[in-house]
Amino acid sequence: MGKISPFAPKRLAKLPPIEGVRIATTAAGIRYPGRTDLLFALFDPGTTVAGALTKSKTASAPVDWCRQHLAHGMARALVVNSGNANAFTGKRGREAVALTVEAAASAADCLDADVYVASTGVIGEPLDARKFTGLLGDLARRAKPDAYEQAARAIMTTDTYPKLATRKTEIDGVEVSINGIAKGAGMIAPNMATMLAFVFTDAAIEPVALRASLDSSLEQSFNAVTIDSDTSTSDTLLVFATGAAAIRGAPRIAVAEDPRITAFRLALAQVMRELALQVVKDGEGLTKFVTVRVTGAENDAAAHRIAQSIANSPLVKTAIAGEDPNWGRIVMAIGKAGEAADRDRIAIWLGDILVATEGEVAPDYREAKGAAYMKNAEISIRADVGIGQGTATVFTCDLTKDYVAINADYRS
Amino acid sequence: MGKISPFAPKRLAKLPPIEGVRIATTAAGIRYPGRTDLLFALFDPGTTVAGALTKSKTASAPVDWCRQHLAHGMARALVVNSGNANAFTGKRGREAVALTVEAAASAADCLDADVYVASTGVIGEPLDARKFTGLLGDLARRAKPDAYEQAARAIMTTDTYPKLATRKTEIDGVEVSINGIAKGAGMIAPNMATMLAFVFTDAAIEPVALRASLDSSLEQSFNAVTIDSDTSTSDTLLVFATGAAAIRGAPRIAVAEDPRITAFRLALAQVMRELALQVVKDGEGLTKFVTVRVTGAENDAAAHRIAQSIANSPLVKTAIAGEDPNWGRIVMAIGKAGEAADRDRIAIWLGDILVATEGEVAPDYREAKGAAYMKNAEISIRADVGIGQGTATVFTCDLTKDYVAINADYRS
Repeated sequence: MGKISPFAPKRLAKLPPIEGVRIATTAAGIRYPGRTDLLFALFDPGTTVAGALTKSKTASAPVDWCRQHLAHGMARALVVNSGNANAFTGKRGREAVALTVEAAASAADCLDADVYVASTGVIGEPLDARKFTGLLGDLARRAKPDAYEQAARAIMTTDTYPKLATRKTEIDGVEVSINGIAKGAGMIAPNMATMLAFVFTDAAIEPVALRASLDSSLEQSFNAVTIDSDTSTSDTLLVFATGAAAIRGAPRIAVAEDPRITAFRLALAQVMRELALQVVKDGEGLTKFVTVRVTGAENDAAAHRIAQSIANSPLVKTAIAGEDPNWGRIVMAIGKAGEAADRDRIAIWLGDILVATEGEVAPDYREAKGAAYMKNAEISIRADVGIGQGTATVFTCDLTKDYVAINADYRS
Repeated sequence: MGKISPFAPKRLAKLPPIEGVRIATTAAGIRYPGRTDLLFALFDPGTTVAGALTKSKTASAPVDWCRQHLAHGMARALVVNSGNANAFTGKRGREAVALTVEAAASAADCLDADVYVASTGVIGEPLDARKFTGLLGDLARRAKPDAYEQAARAIMTTDTYPKLATRKTEIDGVEVSINGIAKGAGMIAPNMATMLAFVFTDAAIEPVALRASLDSSLEQSFNAVTIDSDTSTSDTLLVFATGAAAIRGAPRIAVAEDPRITAFRLALAQVMRELALQVVKDGEGLTKFVTVRVTGAENDAAAHRIAQSIANSPLVKTAIAGEDPNWGRIVMAIGKAGEAADRDRIAIWLGDILVATEGEVAPDYREAKGAAYMKNAEISIRADVGIGQGTATVFTCDLTKDYVAINADYRS
């Protein structure tokens, strides 16, 4: 899949075991032989779950299954495969999910309703679940508490590095841990969650409170990143809370407003944001990591749409790839967003350099300054649209010849 | 600017003179020395004008001028420059327009209000109108009735060929002509009109009827094409009707519903569509011309949004560049459009090949068939989303490494 992202971490985060979670992975040969492509996670009884799923109208069969079962909020097992998204696979897709769930429930000794599934890879090809259903019993037997790196690797497709994040925090004085894994790297314009991300904690939190904690972190994490504006059929974010910390005295939290989980919610938000940024930093073919900040919009939602318009513009993204301080294209992208903007009060910064102000090029701006700034690997764009108080930040990457090469050749 | 589009016409259309229109061009050195970059068109007294302008919130100074003056509907002169868009240039931009208009009115011996202006090129750099205001008097003296090819060349930027179209038709038995020129080739996702297109006719039509005739052709022409989803700050379409045919007995048409201009309206629609398709066929870096047809949507507007979502998806466009029949990405693009679609009733065709039906791969579809089809230079995608009767067609091109190269290097 080409070269490693220049933003790949020099050292992968080391994730500690989470009490109540065991993990195993294997190479089931779903698409490519010899590549780890199956993740089986098992949770102790009493584990709660909350999630966010793609808003796509052509969501995959596994997404349908998760949407249906998240309502009751309890989980005992998670099966994830890469290589095939089981999306747009009709009746056979639903059958593949049913087969997977049945085999996982048998291996985990739980109800079908407590099994969650996710698939990533090619869309539209039937998934032959029998390639891996026979493996789940053995995986359950050899599942271990410290296999997060293997788990993150098992769900990769065009990703060039595994995405891992971890935090320790306290609930009412009792230490709890949060581990997260995610995958990218194309078809990323999450509309609820990125393609796949899974978060695990030993905190004891009821489903409703867990869901509220997750929701409040979404806008600043997965919903704030875009690689190519293409929302996936498979976006799935699941957070599992085993409650094992209760044995060590942690309280069981019933409502998100409980002040005892303020620190936990912050730590959860950090894990989600760290995963989301790692996803962007592994965007297909990227050479630059880009932060787009919009201020002065009518409201935060308007600011978000303007920031997305800038972040998704092919002309802005190719200019960044070419290290060209072509801020006129930022003006264009503000203009096409359709949100209120006062053209004659717009101001634009590249990093700390004021490029435009009062609707025209800034008096002190010199092209050489902008050109020098664009040589940085991390680029920050800020635009004030001169209307109100709305603000938003979106993270993205540049659009390069390698993006085209990767996606023109992905299936061949 | 790289290689010529594979869809460049083998032979350019030869446009006849239009009575009442005279044209001259020159190289004013606006951005590049020695490149024709200035067009001056003069119209006989009595010429009416109608137009459509970008909906961008950061429209250029010339667009502002045109919007303000189209209301009265009369025209005597048109000045177009390439090399600099005079967009996001603040007060200096308005001054450049005022200088241009004043010089043109003096050269054409008319009111300022009867002069129309358009600029295309780099955004955000002040336009020094004095580079060309001194040339307009001489251009007026040597303007000729048969200079349409030069006119089309003078407005090119990254275009690899001039866009020209012509039709003859009749109004009440009297022959009238319609000539059109346009330019592309990036920042093309018109939201009212493409970057620049100008149409000239000797028909005698009042402004209101001319505007109605133009509007009814927009949806099937300029508003039905997209190259890169980036709506320009400068989109300008102007139609000038000199009325010279009245001397030969053509009636002066006051309302668009007048049955005597039914044939004229059809011919105008044909010219506009031909220009719009020529713009797509010169999309930056393209190797494929793509027609996206959506049927079965809730209504025509929904069908248009779904077709745009497919046509603008980087993953669909790169798959086409790679000759990969990756129809799963079409499913994704339908899903992300946000419009109603019945996933389990969606059907997809590549050309005449039924690829997917009833929400999954078609029983008789074989990958080899799809792969062979994708080798064609002109690709047709059809998707039925299984909801209602809405239909729409959008024209686009593929996304190639050359698009990235052209736009990463445009200003360097």
